[in-house]
Amino acid sequence: MDKILNLNTDDFYVTVEPGVTRKTLNAYLRDSGLWFPVDPGADASLCGMVATSASGTNAVRYGTMRDNVINLEVVLPDGRVLCTAGKDRSFRKTSAGYNLTSLFVGSEGTLGIITKATLRLYGVPEATVAAVCAFPSVQAAVDSTVQILQCGIPIARIEFLDDVMINACNKYNDLGYPVLPTLFLEFHGSENGVNEQVQQAAEITQLNGGSDFTWATDQEQRNKLWTARHNAWYAALALRPGCRGYSTDVCVPISKLPQIIVETKEDLITSRLTGPIAGHVGDGNFHCIMVLDLNDKEEVRKVKEFTDRLARRALAMNGTCTGEHGIGIGKRKLLQEEIGEVGIEAMKQIKTIFDPKNIMNPGKVV
Amino acid sequence: MDKILNLNTDDFYVTVEPGVTRKTLNAYLRDSGLWFPVDPGADASLCGMVATSASGTNAVRYGTMRDNVINLEVVLPDGRVLCTAGKDRSFRKTSAGYNLTSLFVGSEGTLGIITKATLRLYGVPEATVAAVCAFPSVQAAVDSTVQILQCGIPIARIEFLDDVMINACNKYNDLGYPVLPTLFLEFHGSENGVNEQVQQAAEITQLNGGSDFTWATDQEQRNKLWTARHNAWYAALALRPGCRGYSTDVCVPISKLPQIIVETKEDLITSRLTGPIAGHVGDGNFHCIMVLDLNDKEEVRKVKEFTDRLARRALAMNGTCTGEHGIGIGKRKLLQEEIGEVGIEAMKQIKTIFDPKNIMNPGKVV
Repeated sequence: MDKILNLNTDDFYVTVEPGVTRKTLNAYLRDSGLWFPVDPGADASLCGMVATSASGTNAVRYGTMRDNVINLEVVLPDGRVLCTAGKDRSFRKTSAGYNLTSLFVGSEGTLGIITKATLRLYGVPEATVAAVCAFPSVQAAVDSTVQILQCGIPIARIEFLDDVMINACNKYNDLGYPVLPTLFLEFHGSENGVNEQVQQAAEITQLNGGSDFTWATDQEQRNKLWTARHNAWYAALALRPGCRGYSTDVCVPISKLPQIIVETKEDLITSRLTGPIAGHVGDGNFHCIMVLDLNDKEEVRKVKEFTDRLARRALAMNGTCTGEHGIGIGKRKLLQEEIGEVGIEAMKQIKTIFDPKNIMNPGKVV
Repeated sequence: MDKILNLNTDDFYVTVEPGVTRKTLNAYLRDSGLWFPVDPGADASLCGMVATSASGTNAVRYGTMRDNVINLEVVLPDGRVLCTAGKDRSFRKTSAGYNLTSLFVGSEGTLGIITKATLRLYGVPEATVAAVCAFPSVQAAVDSTVQILQCGIPIARIEFLDDVMINACNKYNDLGYPVLPTLFLEFHGSENGVNEQVQQAAEITQLNGGSDFTWATDQEQRNKLWTARHNAWYAALALRPGCRGYSTDVCVPISKLPQIIVETKEDLITSRLTGPIAGHVGDGNFHCIMVLDLNDKEEVRKVKEFTDRLARRALAMNGTCTGEHGIGIGKRKLLQEEIGEVGIEAMKQIKTIFDPKNIMNPGKVV
């Protein structure tokens, strides 16, 4: 465990080196009463999660990597070592100079290589309860989400799966959920607190025509539920054996979710494409998992056009072309449309400061 | 109200122009069920709060300005307009390119002028209860704070006042709190949730030798309590009529608070200086409100030396020389010690990108 450093249980932080994954860290933390909640589904490397600004199912309650990185050690392209908040420093807040830490979170390896990350930890909740609820429409599922957030219910996870995605999950995981727009929910808190949260949330979902909650109270049932959610990728692929997957994501103001999801589903049908939808609805962020035959050039082209239309639909609603997947190569043009000329120019200049010879992930982001 | 734009109650955001203060915004929001919690005490302009990365009493629960700014419109020194997250965009998360928004939060006017800020809003809690608790020692007050956070009690405010500060507050506000290290606490949640939080917190404080809570349940009592806290500055000044105030702040890992506060109080006594201590103890952040005679050059010099020692004491504990007051002119040397040569070089280059002619708050920060 020499790659996990400086665990501090009084101050809720830990430092990790490259290669330490989320699951490894949480196993290490098991007896400390603390955990690191950010969970992008896959058992990703934490330094990689910093570089890509990962988020996932818990972000609605605990924030994304942007909110949970305290300090970074970065090796710059010229070999100098930068500690973004100063060497070995750890604090819950600072107003000392420009925020270099946030500049490197989500920089996709284009500014330097992250060699240490100091992360914020949280107390393990006393009680955790998960539930599944089906709705007559996308609108009803999203309205429930907005109302749950407005009531201040500190929901830990609120995940949307469309009818196509639920059908795929049922088949892949041998489950029997109704094939309808569905929310997977999880509540964290004290025993009484969770009971109250559940009662309030159930009232809201029922008023919106949601089904009774299907419960997952013990760890085994919860694992089954979240494994089904985390297997969405494989469940989608299984819809068309022999095909490959391409997952895209956008993020919009939550109130725009019903409109964008309905329009996107219409687009999928019109385009004759397979793209089940799963999303972190509490953040306004969702994925289309495109399943396509890479040998079919016409289909590849149609998928590319579809994902560009999806991103521009999000941009037209004041959203972002990517909530958590990043820009990479494929969304550089969309980033320009999103940020505008002045912002792109600033990003290019920042890239030049740190990597004047353009040797760090050249061609990515800007 | 033409300076408050785009209130969106479904998506929990609002855009404000310069001049709109925290109190003006919260008065405007009164009937919406939403509020903006970041509260640095004074009724500051929100765009100014962005520029200085303000935080204050609610940050332990709701975060600082760094956590609550969605987008900024900035006029750059050459007249170009930069929208840090893209024009009119608002979302709960994004991974589209470098985080320009965070770069401008806390930039102290050195990179450009903030002309619009889109801020995240929160639901007004159903119930709010505040309490005061006295402790036999600084250690006991801080231990209680750490344990309250470790238990996951979602405390909204937890403020520390040392014996000198409490004595000053008692005199200034005609109150009768015991002259001991003291916590002011506030709990937000549902009626039941708040009751449970209070019960858990009371158990913890009693185990650490704290007094019974003195309650402030209704709005009037709470206002009285927080007015006393927010008047700390004036209460400190009243200790030495005719003198002036100079408030400094540092932030350390919470577990280091007892040590740094005890050492700082010893330093104040040895140096024969007046500097009551008040702090956002849940963040590890505290202030010494130095009260000094500006005509006494010897005292002015001693205060400067004391505040530098305080900052270096924080740096030696892996803390920061400023949790929320910023660098300005006075802490530039300390910033260099905190961040190191490579970090300062990066900050200088960032300054040069946006303000090559050095016309924006020249001489500040870097």
